[in-house]
Amino acid sequence: MANQLLAGKKGIIFGALNSKSIAWKVAEKAVAEGAQIVLTNAPIAVRMGEIQELSTKLNAPVIAADATSVEDLENLFSEAQKMLGGKIDFVLHSIGMSPNVRKERSYDDLNYDFLSKTLDISAISFHKMLQVAKKQDAIAQGGSVVALTYIAAQRTFVGYSDMADAKALLESITRSFGCIYGQEKGVRINTISQSPTMTTAGSGVGGFNLFFDVAEKMSPLGNADADDCADYCVVMFSDYTRKVTMQNLYNDGGFSNTGMSLDAMNQYMKSFEK
Amino acid sequence: MANQLLAGKKGIIFGALNSKSIAWKVAEKAVAEGAQIVLTNAPIAVRMGEIQELSTKLNAPVIAADATSVEDLENLFSEAQKMLGGKIDFVLHSIGMSPNVRKERSYDDLNYDFLSKTLDISAISFHKMLQVAKKQDAIAQGGSVVALTYIAAQRTFVGYSDMADAKALLESITRSFGCIYGQEKGVRINTISQSPTMTTAGSGVGGFNLFFDVAEKMSPLGNADADDCADYCVVMFSDYTRKVTMQNLYNDGGFSNTGMSLDAMNQYMKSFEK
Amino acid sequence: MANQLLAGKKGIIFGALNSKSIAWKVAEKAVAEGAQIVLTNAPIAVRMGEIQELSTKLNAPVIAADATSVEDLENLFSEAQKMLGGKIDFVLHSIGMSPNVRKERSYDDLNYDFLSKTLDISAISFHKMLQVAKKQDAIAQGGSVVALTYIAAQRTFVGYSDMADAKALLESITRSFGCIYGQEKGVRINTISQSPTMTTAGSGVGGFNLFFDVAEKMSPLGNADADDCADYCVVMFSDYTRKVTMQNLYNDGGFSNTGMSLDAMNQYMKSFEK
Amino acid sequence: MANQLLAGKKGIIFGALNSKSIAWKVAEKAVAEGAQIVLTNAPIAVRMGEIQELSTKLNAPVIAADATSVEDLENLFSEAQKMLGGKIDFVLHSIGMSPNVRKERSYDDLNYDFLSKTLDISAISFHKMLQVAKKQDAIAQGGSVVALTYIAAQRTFVGYSDMADAKALLESITRSFGCIYGQEKGVRINTISQSPTMTTAGSGVGGFNLFFDVAEKMSPLGNADADDCADYCVVMFSDYTRKVTMQNLYNDGGFSNTGMSLDAMNQYMKSFEK
Repeated sequence: MANQLLAGKKGIIFGALNSKSIAWKVAEKAVAEGAQIVLTNAPIAVRMGEIQELSTKLNAPVIAADATSVEDLENLFSEAQKMLGGKIDFVLHSIGMSPNVRKERSYDDLNYDFLSKTLDISAISFHKMLQVAKKQDAIAQGGSVVALTYIAAQRTFVGYSDMADAKALLESITRSFGCIYGQEKGVRINTISQSPTMTTAGSGVGGFNLFFDVAEKMSPLGNADADDCADYCVVMFSDYTRKVTMQNLYNDGGFSNTGMSLDAMNQYMKSFEK
Repeated sequence: MANQLLAGKKGIIFGALNSKSIAWKVAEKAVAEGAQIVLTNAPIAVRMGEIQELSTKLNAPVIAADATSVEDLENLFSEAQKMLGGKIDFVLHSIGMSPNVRKERSYDDLNYDFLSKTLDISAISFHKMLQVAKKQDAIAQGGSVVALTYIAAQRTFVGYSDMADAKALLESITRSFGCIYGQEKGVRINTISQSPTMTTAGSGVGGFNLFFDVAEKMSPLGNADADDCADYCVVMFSDYTRKVTMQNLYNDGGFSNTGMSLDAMNQYMKSFEK
Repeated sequence: MANQLLAGKKGIIFGALNSKSIAWKVAEKAVAEGAQIVLTNAPIAVRMGEIQELSTKLNAPVIAADATSVEDLENLFSEAQKMLGGKIDFVLHSIGMSPNVRKERSYDDLNYDFLSKTLDISAISFHKMLQVAKKQDAIAQGGSVVALTYIAAQRTFVGYSDMADAKALLESITRSFGCIYGQEKGVRINTISQSPTMTTAGSGVGGFNLFFDVAEKMSPLGNADADDCADYCVVMFSDYTRKVTMQNLYNDGGFSNTGMSLDAMNQYMKSFEK
Repeated sequence: MANQLLAGKKGIIFGALNSKSIAWKVAEKAVAEGAQIVLTNAPIAVRMGEIQELSTKLNAPVIAADATSVEDLENLFSEAQKMLGGKIDFVLHSIGMSPNVRKERSYDDLNYDFLSKTLDISAISFHKMLQVAKKQDAIAQGGSVVALTYIAAQRTFVGYSDMADAKALLESITRSFGCIYGQEKGVRINTISQSPTMTTAGSGVGGFNLFFDVAEKMSPLGNADADDCADYCVVMFSDYTRKVTMQNLYNDGGFSNTGMSLDAMNQYMKSFEK
């Protein structure tokens, strides 16, 4: 379905770990739509992931950067502008990790050092990225920044733990920074709130398969997958959505506004059968 | 900026009155993106408006239909399918009118016959259109329907009167019908909540110019205009947003999530100067 | 738990049909908290229901009024003021009925005359009541009006049909009228969005028992019942909530902000067992 | 207006600095309604504030505790239970401070150590308090916890800076912890989102007087003051709201749902006069 929606545009894609990653799909689609991109991920992810493969395929350089490090981000934005030959038009933030979830700490037994890490990696990294970019005036007038989030920022999902809080913080940063960056430079900042997605990160959350099934049945269109998300990112990066900012956009098959669907009800009813 | 986002798609556009209409812009952009369309409006609007001019320009037939009449809608959908040679891929509902607003009845002095008309024209017409389309199985699998709305559905704006209630009803119909049509036929239904827009309908609301100015200053990107709205409609009609449904999407330069911007504050401060 | 939260206050309670009605509980608690009240319901409900029993018990007169009739409402407010000896301090609107639901018309096969009735009875009646009261200046400065609603106004529940749209309209009227009545007379208007409740009206909705069970397990505190709702109404009528207006207040054990609870997940998992 | 809404209940009030503090008013009203309370604040605030005066007046012991210190909170909850002779029925969290705001760092020039402090003091302290309380099983079945917040968590207000993000995080913690504590112990957790309030903390935010004026004119009932907030806290602590949890409750005169009021529009129009 490629057009040339991003012809001539330059972008930075954070968070492509492997071919299941949403960021991986976004990178592929952005290039297919005519963009030039730089890939970035944490140094350890760059060493251990399959990102070099993607780099080769898309002819896109990789710059390792710890998204919690202002210095790394400064280097990333200045190098990316050099490599791409100009200001950045779009940025994808697809970064999230909770040591509390990984270590299976329940939400009423959080380790607070882990919580700081969760927030720093999954949310504050977004502020750092934006602050560095703005100080360098690295993003072009009318540029577009998207971060990926999840509806746990609005409603509690058992097992999602402090990632819910990190996503709420991420969405707040989107609004707060979007207001300033929009007014001063015309840069849009939005989040896409995605269905549960079969990625390495997503499936690390406890009970993921059940969530996935419930969401699939509860969503009138079924879950949105990584490809669907990448398509939505492309239109948000494009000039077709120039006046959309500070929004949280659900890409979820209608899950967010469904209280009870016919499919979910039918499945639930089976639980009472013998 | 035309690509071929709607190549091969067939659409129906309600509500193009004159060249300031959002629907007019949507019609132009949809055709520029490769779609074939049918234009429709109320019989009186067809006679008195400039829609024939648009029809000629876009090579798009006009079918007059009163959107509150099930019979007219039945005729519209069956004729449109014949003219376009197949099922409909996208529909725009851009219809709203309040006799109470026109007659300057204040919200605490509504005429209830007028209120019925407001709701029938501005909201229930959307249900009728969807019900007729579904009964005829007129919309293709994966089709996309968009209605235009305004943030008065969420927050009260003095002077907007019963149009606020009509928009709230319209958005509810979007969710309710979206759930069913999505599950059964994969059809997406969304609303776009647009900045105050300088159209014939928009500027009929009392105090419009002031609203427009406040919204312009309060929105970090400024108000979205009719062209911006048409671009957003195009991406919502396209296959790039296949899993987005039952949503209310703000195309408003960030207004909806701004409590107080620097520009609005500065303007407001002047009111205290002598 | 009676204090004297409503000592000296005068109220009108719409919608007490029988002892399972939320309005019945509200009437009892309001009187227990020191209020004097007038009961009202549709003429047919007055004849067929058990409201006379409640009237006797609470020493509260009954005035029959069709809430869709402006004339009946005019008579109600003027008579109630005479009977209670002054302006009204609080009003409960607990009225909802959908002929489409009763006749089991599915949402994609609505009868539009029925839809008009649904909206007129369940939502527009609230506007009429408020408009009549304001024209008579019948509600005291600082008075409080509450209408009961359901979360189907925000999210689609299969089977709830056009009642969802009626509730969305009701909540919009709450905001729109609340803005005017607040500014001019200090009158607060709010909705309470209640858990599924075992009333005659509630259990008329298709699949009610299943909704009730899902909501019970999904709500961290379990469903709120009619007594809980009556308690909440009492505090909203009292002077403890003088600055709360135009809000939709969930009395639902946390359902509205729960995406997936442990109990619901465990029940749902059973559906996959053999 | 005192009844005995909190008769026999035991509470802990965080954040009473001086007689303008909301927490101060809450303490007074809670005692007037029959509660026994313990006051707490940071050690430096205890030394420098007027809390001893309040302690004497209300016969309420003061326990100094840094709300960011798990150890201090452990001591607080165990001492408070001893002093009050049993489990805690209600808790008020009224704590917020941003070094970035104090040092007038703009939001696109945040100091990240300061941001960590903002989040730790203003939001994570709430999680720590709840986690400590739950581990000690210090809160009685059906107990009620309230934290104070501001609408900047939903919409951006220029100058509110990283406090907006802290409030968004606080509200997320409310939902996340409310789900668990509700299901396991029947404990309710809510936030009250208060009008701009003339407190020492509130008026520290840049442009506060203007915000206050805009909010006053934009709110149909005018701004809610500290007394209004204390009244609302009392009903949330009482048994009248037993099934309300995980909610963000606006106590704001209708500001949150008003897009443009007549008063604000009239004031704004003056800004264009010469």
